[in-house]
Amino acid sequence: MLQSNKRSNAIDLDSYIQSNCDQINQRLNTLVPDRNVPYGKLFQAARYSLLSGGKRLRPILTLATTEVLQGNLEAALSPACTIELIHTYSLIHDDLPCMDDDNYRRGKPTLHKVFSESHAVLAGDFLLTYAFEVIADDPLLSAEQKVALIRVLAKNAGGIGMIAGQLMDLEAEKKQIDLSTLQLIHKNKTGALITAAIEFGAIVANASPEITETLKQFGRDIGHAFQIVDDVLDDKEGSDLTKGKATYVSLLGLEKAQETAYTILSQSLKNLESLPMDTTLLNRLAHHLVNRDN
Amino acid sequence: MLQSNKRSNAIDLDSYIQSNCDQINQRLNTLVPDRNVPYGKLFQAARYSLLSGGKRLRPILTLATTEVLQGNLEAALSPACTIELIHTYSLIHDDLPCMDDDNYRRGKPTLHKVFSESHAVLAGDFLLTYAFEVIADDPLLSAEQKVALIRVLAKNAGGIGMIAGQLMDLEAEKKQIDLSTLQLIHKNKTGALITAAIEFGAIVANASPEITETLKQFGRDIGHAFQIVDDVLDDKEGSDLTKGKATYVSLLGLEKAQETAYTILSQSLKNLESLPMDTTLLNRLAHHLVNRDN
Repeated sequence: MLQSNKRSNAIDLDSYIQSNCDQINQRLNTLVPDRNVPYGKLFQAARYSLLSGGKRLRPILTLATTEVLQGNLEAALSPACTIELIHTYSLIHDDLPCMDDDNYRRGKPTLHKVFSESHAVLAGDFLLTYAFEVIADDPLLSAEQKVALIRVLAKNAGGIGMIAGQLMDLEAEKKQIDLSTLQLIHKNKTGALITAAIEFGAIVANASPEITETLKQFGRDIGHAFQIVDDVLDDKEGSDLTKGKATYVSLLGLEKAQETAYTILSQSLKNLESLPMDTTLLNRLAHHLVNRDN
Repeated sequence: MLQSNKRSNAIDLDSYIQSNCDQINQRLNTLVPDRNVPYGKLFQAARYSLLSGGKRLRPILTLATTEVLQGNLEAALSPACTIELIHTYSLIHDDLPCMDDDNYRRGKPTLHKVFSESHAVLAGDFLLTYAFEVIADDPLLSAEQKVALIRVLAKNAGGIGMIAGQLMDLEAEKKQIDLSTLQLIHKNKTGALITAAIEFGAIVANASPEITETLKQFGRDIGHAFQIVDDVLDDKEGSDLTKGKATYVSLLGLEKAQETAYTILSQSLKNLESLPMDTTLLNRLAHHLVNRDN
């Protein structure tokens, strides 16, 4: 415990993120290989979106939570990657012409532009389905852990989680919505999967229900702060993405939005400090998420 | 065993199908309720497609397999319904304009026509994700059974299963394909989920690996015969669905296609008879699938 404490304080966060990002990318590359089969284009399409240089914030949160809880990091890697499979599928489907109709993602043309809409629908369906297969097949987890992970993933990514958020977000376009509706949208659309990423670490490390509950609250808080910062950054960059859409900035003003993000961050860190272990790593990641500039 | 034997022989298949269909519809109705929430339209959309009077052949195969193996029928009901959740999601996504672009399904306008394309994408995503949640939450199954069911479902519905079949099917349009390619398409697009339905019964009933393997081969065979009969019926009805598409009838001719279906059926029944229990119920269902007229 002392060793872990020292390590977390001394750690270079950029190196921590980079080395975990590399591990995650390697595992994703192995999990979704290029396949020489008659339906190989499905895997090419999935890889186009999956391996296009995301920040991997969600799987890093799983690994960091596992590390803070002194759980098995090797066992956490594939579950962490399934969060990224789900995140990627949601981006692919959200970008479709009938949804947000986005032509670019991470500086590259979106999947349906490079392949086709049908390939984008199917590649998304594939990554979603495959996330559950990866957990079910994992040799390093007990059956109970697998079931717990699958339950958390399906609920948070599902019809009372991420998909609900996406539906409300689509329906909110060209409508006046209030702050509580905006919060409900983002709690589901963004917050649910971030919370799941943290709960994944708790499941892999076999954390107690009390510790798990505190970490989930931390996840909900940083998910909330993360989305406010997203809106602040989009506003500062004059992004098209928020055009005609209610955002934290349009509802609260830039200064008040920024202030709210910091208040939530500070609350989440106080919550985190109540845990009986060294949580410096998660503390620093939370700061990183809220203080990022892109 | 004797009692079961008598029962299967004496059974009125139409009543058996009807009463199981009713049970499945009731459970589906409970699993996906109408919800009074801000994202209630997601559930309305899912219910529109899910409760629109399908034949429920796949979940009935799960229940029949469980019954033949003298497994717990109550424990088989929710897993059986998850096969129908997956089947319904696949129909919703397949019907999308960017996919098969179908305006009608089971005599009713397709989901994207009544709601919208975005609702159809999201309702499909929801049903797919929810299938795994239902299994993970089932109070009547062990953790090992849940993991086994989820593994089988994800593999058969996934990128080397049903989704691969759909991709090949789309890519085969307006192309000359041969019989072995057509077989590969249908093995994945239709056969995989039918095989999973039967394997589900084996998992719920804790069947031995040998018995499970024999039942899976039976599933692959009747899935194959089922698809040939589909093509034969579409041809007889002069359906638009097969226009410009390779089918068993276009490649083999009507008579030879019909003959092939019966040859496969007879092989599958011989295979089934090798099992050390009364399999009359599955035998009769297989006949029913191949001799159906719609």
